[in-house]
Amino acid sequence: MESWREMVAFPLTGRSRKPRTRGLTMVLDKGLGLGETKDLLDIAGDHVDLLKLGFGTSALYGDGILQEKINLVRRYGIDIYPGGTFMEVAIAQGRLLPFLRTARQLGFTAVEVSDGTLFLDAEVRREAIILALENGFKVLTEVGKKHGHPNCLDLARQAKLDIKAGASWVIVEGREFGRDVTVYDGNGRVREELLALFLECVEDQNLIIWEAPLKDQQEELIVRFGPDVNLGNIAPQELLSLEALRVGLRGDTLRRCYQRMV
Amino acid sequence: MESWREMVAFPLTGRSRKPRTRGLTMVLDKGLGLGETKDLLDIAGDHVDLLKLGFGTSALYGDGILQEKINLVRRYGIDIYPGGTFMEVAIAQGRLLPFLRTARQLGFTAVEVSDGTLFLDAEVRREAIILALENGFKVLTEVGKKHGHPNCLDLARQAKLDIKAGASWVIVEGREFGRDVTVYDGNGRVREELLALFLECVEDQNLIIWEAPLKDQQEELIVRFGPDVNLGNIAPQELLSLEALRVGLRGDTLRRCYQRMV
Amino acid sequence: MESWREMVAFPLTGRSRKPRTRGLTMVLDKGLGLGETKDLLDIAGDHVDLLKLGFGTSALYGDGILQEKINLVRRYGIDIYPGGTFMEVAIAQGRLLPFLRTARQLGFTAVEVSDGTLFLDAEVRREAIILALENGFKVLTEVGKKHGHPNCLDLARQAKLDIKAGASWVIVEGREFGRDVTVYDGNGRVREELLALFLECVEDQNLIIWEAPLKDQQEELIVRFGPDVNLGNIAPQELLSLEALRVGLRGDTLRRCYQRMV
Repeated sequence: MESWREMVAFPLTGRSRKPRTRGLTMVLDKGLGLGETKDLLDIAGDHVDLLKLGFGTSALYGDGILQEKINLVRRYGIDIYPGGTFMEVAIAQGRLLPFLRTARQLGFTAVEVSDGTLFLDAEVRREAIILALENGFKVLTEVGKKHGHPNCLDLARQAKLDIKAGASWVIVEGREFGRDVTVYDGNGRVREELLALFLECVEDQNLIIWEAPLKDQQEELIVRFGPDVNLGNIAPQELLSLEALRVGLRGDTLRRCYQRMV
Repeated sequence: MESWREMVAFPLTGRSRKPRTRGLTMVLDKGLGLGETKDLLDIAGDHVDLLKLGFGTSALYGDGILQEKINLVRRYGIDIYPGGTFMEVAIAQGRLLPFLRTARQLGFTAVEVSDGTLFLDAEVRREAIILALENGFKVLTEVGKKHGHPNCLDLARQAKLDIKAGASWVIVEGREFGRDVTVYDGNGRVREELLALFLECVEDQNLIIWEAPLKDQQEELIVRFGPDVNLGNIAPQELLSLEALRVGLRGDTLRRCYQRMV
Repeated sequence: MESWREMVAFPLTGRSRKPRTRGLTMVLDKGLGLGETKDLLDIAGDHVDLLKLGFGTSALYGDGILQEKINLVRRYGIDIYPGGTFMEVAIAQGRLLPFLRTARQLGFTAVEVSDGTLFLDAEVRREAIILALENGFKVLTEVGKKHGHPNCLDLARQAKLDIKAGASWVIVEGREFGRDVTVYDGNGRVREELLALFLECVEDQNLIIWEAPLKDQQEELIVRFGPDVNLGNIAPQELLSLEALRVGLRGDTLRRCYQRMV
């Protein structure tokens, strides 16, 4: 009797398994409870690489919950980090080092350096990346403001600088809803010319994580870059749907790769 | 002291109780964890008849979870089946019989025969229905492509053929988002002329399950066909809201049946 | 080592702590299971003041669940009440007193008097408020029909009458989706002129709870009225995101209060 998982050959081939350096899935966690987190990771933990505790929500948990949650998530081989907004505030308030030390003590394994909301001087940004690396963190940086379409060349230049400073990955901002931000238009569709501009400047696409909260964005990026594209801001309840898209077990990517399959 | 449930007479009358042959509710499960599933069924299991493990997600669960989940769901008197896409891939890869045998071994009680994404020859479709019945499954078939509006007469003719071949129910495709598919327009509203065409050809409406993920669609179909219309692709967190719509304990159907109530 | 919660000074100041009389958050619960409820309240219970069991869903729970859920929620210092629609039906069926007695017996601590769907005579409404108070409940009343834009002056006049009759708070209807209702337009945006009209007539804004299911509505009202505005119909999974908005730990309010912060 064959196992269910090997029942069919996955139509889209080339999907990596954990631990992996490409094809990362980053989840946006807006406040999953402890039981819910364990439940989710038991069923779908193989398909999560990074978990972000969105915005400043990690400062608002009930007593003792944050420590337990960090411990729990790490047991599944998943990197966990506080949202970029929280770190932006810490930097603006001149408290970066205490922030990094407490984060380390709690067991966070990564941090995100962003300027989505507040302004960050280029040199301060570079120093924040280096300081975080020195304190033992993986460092994600984010390019793109939360509001409006900046020049994509500027984003790409920033991405290059961040990588040069040592960033592990660069996230392209997509926000929670994926509309009217960086390479997405008001309907959440990829703006081809902006994407092309951005890609021209970036050498190693495996270092880019695309925030892609909408299903059509995930589909578009998988069809374009393959199953091992790095995707972020995935809603927890969409994890298995996304993985089905990646391996061709969902109509949308299955249809578009059908010629290759049979 | 009266019980809370009997506190009021439900404004919409005629809702059946489980086990029932009409008024079925089919849930689209995109990856509920074990704890979440038990939690949901304890509070709302009386209002679920069929649970679909969407797309190919059931092939992507963590070790041992699928078996436990099937056992759990069956204890609540609910039919459980893998999404149509998974079976489409199995057929396309010439593995229908091993698929059915493994599904049976695991305890799935139903399967879905569809051609939402790939093309299925009419004779292959008929044989798949018969083979699934012979292997002890209830058989749901699905009519309607995942993309675009096919001729509704063709859908109705296919439904008739499926029922003749022995299908337990025929599902009218509505996808996860209910827009721009079969009888729904781009805003998810029912297209009257298409629905009328379809209904003209179908003799027993109790054999039809309407995928209706949007609240307005559920409301529209309940007002049109009564509380015991078969509805599918219901999100787990909407189960009790839907049941409230069915019995007239939610504003939308309550308002429209008010004349009849008082 | 500083605690995580005190890592940064919250950018928006003036947020009250529980138990509080302003800055209330009311959650719309459409059928959370027992485990999910406990999980949610452990992580986010500090940020919930009122929990509404939406529509008539509380009449549809599995055996014994309602009693356990009421007991559970009260242990977190949270008021719990059945949706207004259920009480509308009870009144329409001439069963208000048995409704109140059974609700009291079960442990509900509040009720909602509304006429969102059915018509309620002004005198019957006043008597319902008084009867509920006499039976030991906190009383929320709701103004605004579920469909269409009534005259905002009428809403404000009704709010005044309700407060005069003893209502603890008056809710401004926003429905589950926040669009095309009371002060919100079809896109869910606040209609300035309607809001202004309403505010002119209401003396104590702390007695108003704004149903604001959409993030942009929450942001708009927090920026306008401050972190301690009363907000309702919050989805359970948005509780911590909302609290982050209230204290300035999310981009949207952080950006708009940045001048004040640094």
